[in-house]
Amino acid sequence: MEYRIEKDSLGNVKVPKAALFGPQTQRSRMNFKFGRLMPISIIHALLQIKKAAAIVNAKDNNLDQNKSQAIITTIDKILAGHYRDEFPLHVYQTGSGTQTNMNVNEVIAHLAKKLNPDINVHPNDDVNKSQSSNDTFPTAMMIAANDAINQLLPVLKKLVEKLNEKEIAYQTVIKIGRTHLQDATPITFGQEISGWKSAIQHDIDFLEANKDALLELPIGGTAVGTGLNTPNHFDSDMVKQLSKQLDEKFKVAPNKFQGLANHSGITMVHGILKTLATDLIKIGNDIRFLASGPRAGYDELNIPSNEPGSSIMPGKVNPTQIEALTMVGAEVMGNDTTINFANSQGNFEMNVYKPLIITKFLESANLLSESVESFTKKLIDGMTINKDRMDELLKNSLMLVTALSPHIGYERSAKIVQKAKKEDTTLKAAALASGVNEHDFDKWVVARDMTNIDE
Amino acid sequence: MEYRIEKDSLGNVKVPKAALFGPQTQRSRMNFKFGRLMPISIIHALLQIKKAAAIVNAKDNNLDQNKSQAIITTIDKILAGHYRDEFPLHVYQTGSGTQTNMNVNEVIAHLAKKLNPDINVHPNDDVNKSQSSNDTFPTAMMIAANDAINQLLPVLKKLVEKLNEKEIAYQTVIKIGRTHLQDATPITFGQEISGWKSAIQHDIDFLEANKDALLELPIGGTAVGTGLNTPNHFDSDMVKQLSKQLDEKFKVAPNKFQGLANHSGITMVHGILKTLATDLIKIGNDIRFLASGPRAGYDELNIPSNEPGSSIMPGKVNPTQIEALTMVGAEVMGNDTTINFANSQGNFEMNVYKPLIITKFLESANLLSESVESFTKKLIDGMTINKDRMDELLKNSLMLVTALSPHIGYERSAKIVQKAKKEDTTLKAAALASGVNEHDFDKWVVARDMTNIDE
Amino acid sequence: MEYRIEKDSLGNVKVPKAALFGPQTQRSRMNFKFGRLMPISIIHALLQIKKAAAIVNAKDNNLDQNKSQAIITTIDKILAGHYRDEFPLHVYQTGSGTQTNMNVNEVIAHLAKKLNPDINVHPNDDVNKSQSSNDTFPTAMMIAANDAINQLLPVLKKLVEKLNEKEIAYQTVIKIGRTHLQDATPITFGQEISGWKSAIQHDIDFLEANKDALLELPIGGTAVGTGLNTPNHFDSDMVKQLSKQLDEKFKVAPNKFQGLANHSGITMVHGILKTLATDLIKIGNDIRFLASGPRAGYDELNIPSNEPGSSIMPGKVNPTQIEALTMVGAEVMGNDTTINFANSQGNFEMNVYKPLIITKFLESANLLSESVESFTKKLIDGMTINKDRMDELLKNSLMLVTALSPHIGYERSAKIVQKAKKEDTTLKAAALASGVNEHDFDKWVVARDMTNIDE
Amino acid sequence: MEYRIEKDSLGNVKVPKAALFGPQTQRSRMNFKFGRLMPISIIHALLQIKKAAAIVNAKDNNLDQNKSQAIITTIDKILAGHYRDEFPLHVYQTGSGTQTNMNVNEVIAHLAKKLNPDINVHPNDDVNKSQSSNDTFPTAMMIAANDAINQLLPVLKKLVEKLNEKEIAYQTVIKIGRTHLQDATPITFGQEISGWKSAIQHDIDFLEANKDALLELPIGGTAVGTGLNTPNHFDSDMVKQLSKQLDEKFKVAPNKFQGLANHSGITMVHGILKTLATDLIKIGNDIRFLASGPRAGYDELNIPSNEPGSSIMPGKVNPTQIEALTMVGAEVMGNDTTINFANSQGNFEMNVYKPLIITKFLESANLLSESVESFTKKLIDGMTINKDRMDELLKNSLMLVTALSPHIGYERSAKIVQKAKKEDTTLKAAALASGVNEHDFDKWVVARDMTNIDE
Repeated sequence: MEYRIEKDSLGNVKVPKAALFGPQTQRSRMNFKFGRLMPISIIHALLQIKKAAAIVNAKDNNLDQNKSQAIITTIDKILAGHYRDEFPLHVYQTGSGTQTNMNVNEVIAHLAKKLNPDINVHPNDDVNKSQSSNDTFPTAMMIAANDAINQLLPVLKKLVEKLNEKEIAYQTVIKIGRTHLQDATPITFGQEISGWKSAIQHDIDFLEANKDALLELPIGGTAVGTGLNTPNHFDSDMVKQLSKQLDEKFKVAPNKFQGLANHSGITMVHGILKTLATDLIKIGNDIRFLASGPRAGYDELNIPSNEPGSSIMPGKVNPTQIEALTMVGAEVMGNDTTINFANSQGNFEMNVYKPLIITKFLESANLLSESVESFTKKLIDGMTINKDRMDELLKNSLMLVTALSPHIGYERSAKIVQKAKKEDTTLKAAALASGVNEHDFDKWVVARDMTNIDE
Repeated sequence: MEYRIEKDSLGNVKVPKAALFGPQTQRSRMNFKFGRLMPISIIHALLQIKKAAAIVNAKDNNLDQNKSQAIITTIDKILAGHYRDEFPLHVYQTGSGTQTNMNVNEVIAHLAKKLNPDINVHPNDDVNKSQSSNDTFPTAMMIAANDAINQLLPVLKKLVEKLNEKEIAYQTVIKIGRTHLQDATPITFGQEISGWKSAIQHDIDFLEANKDALLELPIGGTAVGTGLNTPNHFDSDMVKQLSKQLDEKFKVAPNKFQGLANHSGITMVHGILKTLATDLIKIGNDIRFLASGPRAGYDELNIPSNEPGSSIMPGKVNPTQIEALTMVGAEVMGNDTTINFANSQGNFEMNVYKPLIITKFLESANLLSESVESFTKKLIDGMTINKDRMDELLKNSLMLVTALSPHIGYERSAKIVQKAKKEDTTLKAAALASGVNEHDFDKWVVARDMTNIDE
Repeated sequence: MEYRIEKDSLGNVKVPKAALFGPQTQRSRMNFKFGRLMPISIIHALLQIKKAAAIVNAKDNNLDQNKSQAIITTIDKILAGHYRDEFPLHVYQTGSGTQTNMNVNEVIAHLAKKLNPDINVHPNDDVNKSQSSNDTFPTAMMIAANDAINQLLPVLKKLVEKLNEKEIAYQTVIKIGRTHLQDATPITFGQEISGWKSAIQHDIDFLEANKDALLELPIGGTAVGTGLNTPNHFDSDMVKQLSKQLDEKFKVAPNKFQGLANHSGITMVHGILKTLATDLIKIGNDIRFLASGPRAGYDELNIPSNEPGSSIMPGKVNPTQIEALTMVGAEVMGNDTTINFANSQGNFEMNVYKPLIITKFLESANLLSESVESFTKKLIDGMTINKDRMDELLKNSLMLVTALSPHIGYERSAKIVQKAKKEDTTLKAAALASGVNEHDFDKWVVARDMTNIDE
Repeated sequence: MEYRIEKDSLGNVKVPKAALFGPQTQRSRMNFKFGRLMPISIIHALLQIKKAAAIVNAKDNNLDQNKSQAIITTIDKILAGHYRDEFPLHVYQTGSGTQTNMNVNEVIAHLAKKLNPDINVHPNDDVNKSQSSNDTFPTAMMIAANDAINQLLPVLKKLVEKLNEKEIAYQTVIKIGRTHLQDATPITFGQEISGWKSAIQHDIDFLEANKDALLELPIGGTAVGTGLNTPNHFDSDMVKQLSKQLDEKFKVAPNKFQGLANHSGITMVHGILKTLATDLIKIGNDIRFLASGPRAGYDELNIPSNEPGSSIMPGKVNPTQIEALTMVGAEVMGNDTTINFANSQGNFEMNVYKPLIITKFLESANLLSESVESFTKKLIDGMTINKDRMDELLKNSLMLVTALSPHIGYERSAKIVQKAKKEDTTLKAAALASGVNEHDFDKWVVARDMTNIDE
């Protein structure tokens, strides 16, 4: 490969000849060669920040208008184009994300000079003007995290909508309830679905009530939070400009020292993602058990046959969408452990787990978005019931005894169930044999009444 | 020991003669002998629920007035008295908390009969009337969790208040900032403290914005969430009565199926507790490093000498309050893993990890309350600065170069620092030797200006 | 309460008049008032260490023989007696356990003087001679951790033994296998149990292969690992003496710097405990699902009715032993997160999360011992099968088709299953209708042959 | 794009015309579109298994020799060639890995037919002969996991070797020790390094003592562990053949039911990886604090200047290799949480978190290999000491008092330290002022003696 020689504050660096990036990117490439790439949404957010800074700095006469315009034009070109390869750095690099910030600075400066050789745009002195990695990177984290939640929310709402359709469809279909995995009193399948829907709705509510925590941008804090080397109002001007560019209501972080050294907002919102993950696992398990069988399981539900289920057992169909969903759930729970650890490890004016924190957050949010969307479309949407089976299981149940209990007392009721179990007979037979009057039994023990659904 | 024979639906049980509890408590004692006891705040919450139920049931003519009055009187006596030994059951029991619900039912019924032998109060048919363990226990979880957060909040606010005092006191004391543990640009110690304060304030805000999630009571759901065997409006009447008894604004859970099978609210709020834990660890680590020394550390802070620090090294003083605090933080992070797992494991109409979930939640909230209170009083309150040391470290720093950079450019500035490092000289000496004018240097490089604090 | 005045290096302290402990214990009591007490097994281990040190120091003429004898006699008295209240300190204290080490030193010195006022035993200069908290406490951690594993192993072996009995009893009882919760090919219940047994046996093997990691004692390292203020061979003499006292094969830690600053052995062995926890959860879930019903579940197993299962549903029996066991499993998984965090946080010559690390380790080991013992006795031992149900589920299964597949090919076999499902008929009917010869079918499709068990 | 129509047991599927994969791969591509790809080492392991099966089946006359040869030739071609795009499936798919197993079967069959159209190799009936996804996938997991550990071990040994060099180089360089971050008694830097080395050596020992757990292959268990549709000795023949192919000592899994439903070995070995992660974090933190400064930190160590450290602070150099390493450590801790959860969720004859478990395991092992290798080369190798600074900190320390204590008692020694602190004087000055004889002081307080290193 051909190289050009570039220089930075530590000396000469051989940079691939055609690369738009410069020596600091190249140093990082040589020093950090492993693991996944920095998420593209962080690159995009940094580009937006650089654009906003060019605008604000020019407005403050803090940056030459021509340079500003050159930077803006260049960024728009990058955002519109195919420059993924120019951002080759990895998550596992310096914990402040400095190298990715410099990568963005270098590519912009280099391409700007290429587009207009008359204007000498400098990566640090111009593109990074009034900024530090220490405030741009956490600002980019917030922008990317907020965006990921914005993508997740409609997917969750779509799931709620689809569950709501199913709830309505099965509102009066009575089935056995189960607690401790043991037969319990009847519910309707609509009621059961309403519990699933409510769980997801709770998580949506939690996200909506808390996502503002992701709008606090520490931009303007520069190196340690004091805002050294920034003009007056740079922070609020940047927040206004970014809000305009991205159509969002960002806020100046109330304390920039906290904004650089703690990622509590991201940690807390990820605490909602893990709650969502646990709720999805619960729902997924319910459905796969209710669809277990077809002959030796609960067999109350039919789920779509999306693919052959076994390479050795012909005709098997498995709840694969749920398996993918619950694997995602398990991963989100692990990501939470990672983020918790990382957020606890800030020191003084900086937390140096930034690339990892945002990568794990985005991974969780994106995997949840994608797996929930797939689960909604490819499983929930096509899920149907085996009404006959639900009826049969309900009919055989002994737990309808609970409706007897207020009339004949807990202890006598318990005896009737034990009798029915022992003699392998129905609840009614055992009740009549124990002296309950048939007329009373039929009046008292009505599965539908036990569900308390409105007529 | 002497026993009496009691009977439940499974047969005869030998119960200690003097015990107020009955056969189901005794069965649980025999079957589950290990681990810590069910938290007392759960017992208290259940007693309040039983009292409210006695009132509501009587109002509905669903329970004999005399029985109701006997139950109420008995509960008040228990709440006022010394009955801890009558609630001997453990956390590791049935995952619905049924045995503890029955323990409470049995003690109330037994003591009521003792107080007034004429009124035959039955544990299931009277004390538990219109209820099930499946709705009373999660209702008690919410009451206890909410109460624990109510105790934590003022402790956190006290910490913020104390940090605020320190922030004001040290608002203009300039010191070196540190990023990546490396010397960075100056800040004031007041600014550094403001970052700590802001982190805790964020967590307070998160708790206050979300604690309503703990006010949703699933009471009235009974066995599976349908509300079987409850009168009309039992749920809302109970919520009103409990709100009155406990001076809180409880709400009827919007979906009782969710309320029995998912503990998402508790899981989410614990996600805030773990965020708080990580922020406390960060602050604790900052302080213990700033107080490291006295001769071979940062030595910027003095912390109170609460106890001799070593059994072998005379005169050593250690940051023990922080060590206790960060151990609590580590424990809260582990509790979060446990709660996440537990909340994911609900099946159908029930989650059977209830006693563990609430125990871990209360443990986290209570340990945080107590350790933060101790940390505030015994460490933050008495913390002072070594001003001379802060001055010395600032004076020697090379990172004031950052104030030069906007004037002479990033690259030339970097060279000056490298020169100073290599020659073990001051920044100023290296700058002048590199051709910076002394007048300019003195005008540009003013530590106080670099902190951007108002005059 | 009445007090006496005692003095330590920081000044006067008011100590309860009757207390055997002294000023440093009292300081800790005043400074750390919350959370659980330091585990008693740590106190016992420290007492053994102090006894061994008195013996070794005397042998080296490093401690007066009379003092040594007084210390030994006193420790034996404490170990035999009722002195729990003299060790009132909490887990949340200094992270080196110094205060508990001093508590032990103080109680021994004080009681020794009480028993024989002529001999003036000093807590630091005599009882703690040649020691530091920094080596005694991690040595005590190892002793206590090893002891806890020694208690767990026989409990696990008892479970394996009991599972083995069941495996033999049900070796030829054929039932349906399940993968993805869907019906799969037949197995015997003995085979299914053998998988559970093998999982536990693996964990036993892992523990036995690794428990030596807990035998490495850092005693002799004193303050920072160098062994300052210890006579020659103090480390190996102590290890020999402790091995003799406790009938165990302890080893001198190969590197005492590591032994003070890292608790990798404990972290790694806890990694086996969490593996065990996950295996127990899997087994527990299998059994509770196989016992689900009685009418609307798998209902293949009967588990003992240890207590009434519901306060509202008469006659319900729940798998409560499993619920307790899986709650323990969830707790162990959380403890692992805590221990991992704590072990990562050592600094330089010390890790200051010692009391938490050992508390969580002991909690996991002890809860596992007790819950597995309870599960073995109260659930596995009394577990029986519903043979008729197993037969019925097997007979109805379509997955016996897998035995057809090698003869007629995967695709044709899959078609037969789909036909049987659609027409709600048996596999055989569908196969014959698809042109399979009855004689061939009967020869090929033999459930017992499919299990590959020996005749 | 152009398609061809293929058929599987569920009907017609449009497969990209040029693809070597077939309908089941295509179904999975359509149904599971998100997240990372299945690790390539799993594909390679499956290819090896298919090759071994072709050999063993042919030997048993269970597969036509021509077909066997065609399969073998094809696999060798794939292993040697560029076929990554033919394995497009994701981690988030069916939890048994069935779709990836079928992907491999399909590509082999298709390419075999392409290479030799006369031989009709069928993906299920020939390539998958005597196998099921349920045994091939967990076998591939073991092979890949074992291989990843084999790659990690030499990297760790290289780190130990490099630490050993440093230990020797600095064996007699005396510096201050630190406990609780407070100054403690002297050690040599070689001793400090020996603690780091010992921690890594412990983890190497743990891995070597336990990696046999990864050699147990459940191949031959087929669908549910019974070995249905396999010839006699297929399991042991496969293990022999795979051992030969891969030059490893694999074993037949002692219980195949366990091998399909539990991944305890992987979970346990990952428990060692997380222990390693915590030890690396500890070491990394030590080094970055010892290198903190240059002017306002401990400044005992110099680490290589690999890149400019700040986009705003010229001349700053940061411990970036450590930041990458500790981010990896945090990720491994999260992966452990995920694997624990996943391993606990097996049901009956299967655990359906297989792709996630192995992906997380490989991610941890590979990230550890790569980050440790980078850390060794780019940080440890170039790390040097600031001897003057070490001397200065040692000289100023008060904790050399510990050498006085055995001579003048703990309490008097403590007083001397307090005096020196208060009067900001040296230990010696305070000691002499307190009546210690200068000759004695100089004899007793010799830093080098306090380190107990051999001359």
